[in-house]
Amino acid sequence: TSEAQIRQENGTTEPFVGYRLFRSVCGEFLGCMLFLFMVITVARFSDDRTQEGITTEATANILMISAAFGLSIFVLVYIFADVSGAHLNPAVSIGLLVGKRISVERFFLYVIAQMAGATAGAGIASTFLSSTRGGYNALADTVSAADAFGAEVLCTFLLVVTVFAACDGELGRKNAHTGPLLPLVIGMAVLLAHLVLIPIDGASINPARSFATAVTNNEWGDHWVFWVGPLLGGVLATVTWEAILRPDQVIEQEKKVPQAISV
Amino acid sequence: TSEAQIRQENGTTEPFVGYRLFRSVCGEFLGCMLFLFMVITVARFSDDRTQEGITTEATANILMISAAFGLSIFVLVYIFADVSGAHLNPAVSIGLLVGKRISVERFFLYVIAQMAGATAGAGIASTFLSSTRGGYNALADTVSAADAFGAEVLCTFLLVVTVFAACDGELGRKNAHTGPLLPLVIGMAVLLAHLVLIPIDGASINPARSFATAVTNNEWGDHWVFWVGPLLGGVLATVTWEAILRPDQVIEQEKKVPQAISV
Amino acid sequence: TSEAQIRQENGTTEPFVGYRLFRSVCGEFLGCMLFLFMVITVARFSDDRTQEGITTEATANILMISAAFGLSIFVLVYIFADVSGAHLNPAVSIGLLVGKRISVERFFLYVIAQMAGATAGAGIASTFLSSTRGGYNALADTVSAADAFGAEVLCTFLLVVTVFAACDGELGRKNAHTGPLLPLVIGMAVLLAHLVLIPIDGASINPARSFATAVTNNEWGDHWVFWVGPLLGGVLATVTWEAILRPDQVIEQEKKVPQAISV
Amino acid sequence: TSEAQIRQENGTTEPFVGYRLFRSVCGEFLGCMLFLFMVITVARFSDDRTQEGITTEATANILMISAAFGLSIFVLVYIFADVSGAHLNPAVSIGLLVGKRISVERFFLYVIAQMAGATAGAGIASTFLSSTRGGYNALADTVSAADAFGAEVLCTFLLVVTVFAACDGELGRKNAHTGPLLPLVIGMAVLLAHLVLIPIDGASINPARSFATAVTNNEWGDHWVFWVGPLLGGVLATVTWEAILRPDQVIEQEKKVPQAISV
Repeated sequence: TSEAQIRQENGTTEPFVGYRLFRSVCGEFLGCMLFLFMVITVARFSDDRTQEGITTEATANILMISAAFGLSIFVLVYIFADVSGAHLNPAVSIGLLVGKRISVERFFLYVIAQMAGATAGAGIASTFLSSTRGGYNALADTVSAADAFGAEVLCTFLLVVTVFAACDGELGRKNAHTGPLLPLVIGMAVLLAHLVLIPIDGASINPARSFATAVTNNEWGDHWVFWVGPLLGGVLATVTWEAILRPDQVIEQEKKVPQAISV
Repeated sequence: TSEAQIRQENGTTEPFVGYRLFRSVCGEFLGCMLFLFMVITVARFSDDRTQEGITTEATANILMISAAFGLSIFVLVYIFADVSGAHLNPAVSIGLLVGKRISVERFFLYVIAQMAGATAGAGIASTFLSSTRGGYNALADTVSAADAFGAEVLCTFLLVVTVFAACDGELGRKNAHTGPLLPLVIGMAVLLAHLVLIPIDGASINPARSFATAVTNNEWGDHWVFWVGPLLGGVLATVTWEAILRPDQVIEQEKKVPQAISV
Repeated sequence: TSEAQIRQENGTTEPFVGYRLFRSVCGEFLGCMLFLFMVITVARFSDDRTQEGITTEATANILMISAAFGLSIFVLVYIFADVSGAHLNPAVSIGLLVGKRISVERFFLYVIAQMAGATAGAGIASTFLSSTRGGYNALADTVSAADAFGAEVLCTFLLVVTVFAACDGELGRKNAHTGPLLPLVIGMAVLLAHLVLIPIDGASINPARSFATAVTNNEWGDHWVFWVGPLLGGVLATVTWEAILRPDQVIEQEKKVPQAISV
Repeated sequence: TSEAQIRQENGTTEPFVGYRLFRSVCGEFLGCMLFLFMVITVARFSDDRTQEGITTEATANILMISAAFGLSIFVLVYIFADVSGAHLNPAVSIGLLVGKRISVERFFLYVIAQMAGATAGAGIASTFLSSTRGGYNALADTVSAADAFGAEVLCTFLLVVTVFAACDGELGRKNAHTGPLLPLVIGMAVLLAHLVLIPIDGASINPARSFATAVTNNEWGDHWVFWVGPLLGGVLATVTWEAILRPDQVIEQEKKVPQAISV
């Protein structure tokens, strides 16, 4: 069976070496690259903990904290998707700004509200124990700032591509999974990023979250990593989505319905 | 790109500083506040257990018990959503009473049924082991009643806002995630609340659950916390939803379809 | 706000003390009873393990094995729902027989296929290790046969009520969660049942699963518990569903569309 | 109630011993076989670890690594389903080739892109720690190559049948769960396969993943198992789906809509 025959049977006349096939092969490459990066990083740190007998950052704690982050975002995106678009993260907001889904004014108002809200929440949490410190981002002893920076870029990249797939999915997809699963998949991308990043730097992918705990703990070491990494990851995700991955049905329908969700 | 330009392209003529934008910024603030409160509380107690070598409340047990609560509510809301609205919790019922979705008569009948049913279930469970005690709410040694009260208010607030987002979502949302995910998101909000609250006070967010185990164990210490905290959280969630977060499409369509689910 | 006023606003003329309200109150009672039974049983056994320092049945193993059971059923119901109705369990088949959704002939053919398939699968699994024993149901030392029997009845009751809610849900529900979540909620009901039952008797809720491992291990102690408990739970669930919980819209539409899924 | 009566009430005139009933009984057999194989393998290895006090492959690590694999595939299938069909695995691609859903040209381009992308991702991951080794597939000491081969075939069989159920489901299903849950069920099939296979051979079910870590670690022992096992599993799944399990509504509508998703 040749590609031309299958295309003919399906009634599509697109030539064999077309943009759709190019985009498909790019997708398989990029998907497998992100897949192996995530899972092998998790497996390597897990092996290291086992071999070195490190118990201070036990696996069960990583699972529980990752679950708390992922489920929080799942529930909050469910609630606030219709209220504000549920960015809850400057890296998501900068992606939607660069992708021209929100205005510059809205971007700055959102980032200020995110920083203020996160700091308020971390401040309330810090009142529940005599030990008032904890939860801030810091590099693990064996990790360089460049490594943490790269890992933050890649994990935020995955998160923000997920956001764009969720936003633009309704228009062109046949299988209709993007709408119903929207808050769940964003929450699970956050959970996954925390499995990867907690052993590296405590996991940011969200400058507002890192800023809030830096304030409440007065810990500012390597703080640039937790701003530049996620913001760069968000911008790179937007550029990749708009240039390569965005469904072409969406591009064609763009002038009629320019905005997929009311952000 | 200014907000006005993006609005014009989208065919919406609403002025820049409007109610929608105000609501959006409130949403980002409130969402980030709840997010950081939840995750940092989980992270702090996790750090404390690690540092103090406390093993009586191991992380795996917290995960398993939280999963049991969250999955129970997921499955039971799936089953009983069409039968009774699946409140299963006086804090949910008081929220829907204050939000005028159910009558006073129904509220009292439901709360009595919830207390009776929960006590029956806890009583059956207490017959399965020679050790007949366990599962009741009590403050951890390092936690004051005021702290537990505040944490119960905030976690129940999140749960009841989720319930209102699920109830009112069908009408105004484009991405159609609120209907299909309804039981799952409520279950996962309960799971998340237990990750946060188990180390603080054993986790209530549900006065009927606390009452039932207080009866079967005859343990009534700080019992007011597990009634006033969740009920206040439910009422505050309702007031916040109705005053700020409720989708305005819903408000406009209110007279035509006054009740989103048959509760 | 009285019930009558709310009913009037909603355009429903049903009297205050009607069948719908009775069913609702029954639902809240039954839901809270099942809820507290499940979660308090999990919490009590967890406390006991912690106090007695029992590590042979560690919590992480219970979580992992429960996840394997729950995710298997999720994936298999997804695949086989259109092929056979995806019973995969004589307790589900007897429920659908008593509820007149399948014929007597189909019931017996299904149960034989389930027992043969399960025994084949357990047999294949037993070839993967020199240790050829494991995975069979047996009562824990502290548990009587009567207790295990009761727990099997209640957990299978929850599973089979979930199946009926999934089958009959499409017709009468406004929020459209029953169709999309069908395989997930059944899988998660199975996961939950294993969190409850593994410390009690290794968890059956499925006579074909218990029969298969009894054959491959030649262990038949208390085997009646794992047949009579689940089958009785399935029958009680059917009777309760048909008599009380079944949506009345479904009852009215019954003559037109007598069978909700093609089982 | 006889089968004939129930069929008559439903308005279907199909004879009692028909193809549909045969397919149903095959489905119950095959489903229960896969079910018991998966769960009993998990339970047996769990028992063995407990009895031998093996802690080098702790249960929590298996859970965390399985979650990382499963959630990665969930998120990536969500993103790339419309871009490339989201195969991300030569075993999925060969199944869709044999099932005539993609052309030979596309198959080879995809496999090359998957191998290149996976190797790039594993290479990036290997830069994040001084310990540059880890994550490659290798047989456990107690496991023969034949056993690992068989387990890889069965687990990949389950994955690829899930893919076909997701692809063909839109057309014939009444309950509409296949579209919305598509990425989640594929991710959870991957998670489940890792719970089963990590203690056996580190879990492949994906030759591109095994190839990538063999390259970055220069570990090629038993490498054929991780190519032949998954590819054979994928082909057997396709043959079984097309010959027995495929919904007959789909077969009838085949000429009109020959391709269920744009792969």
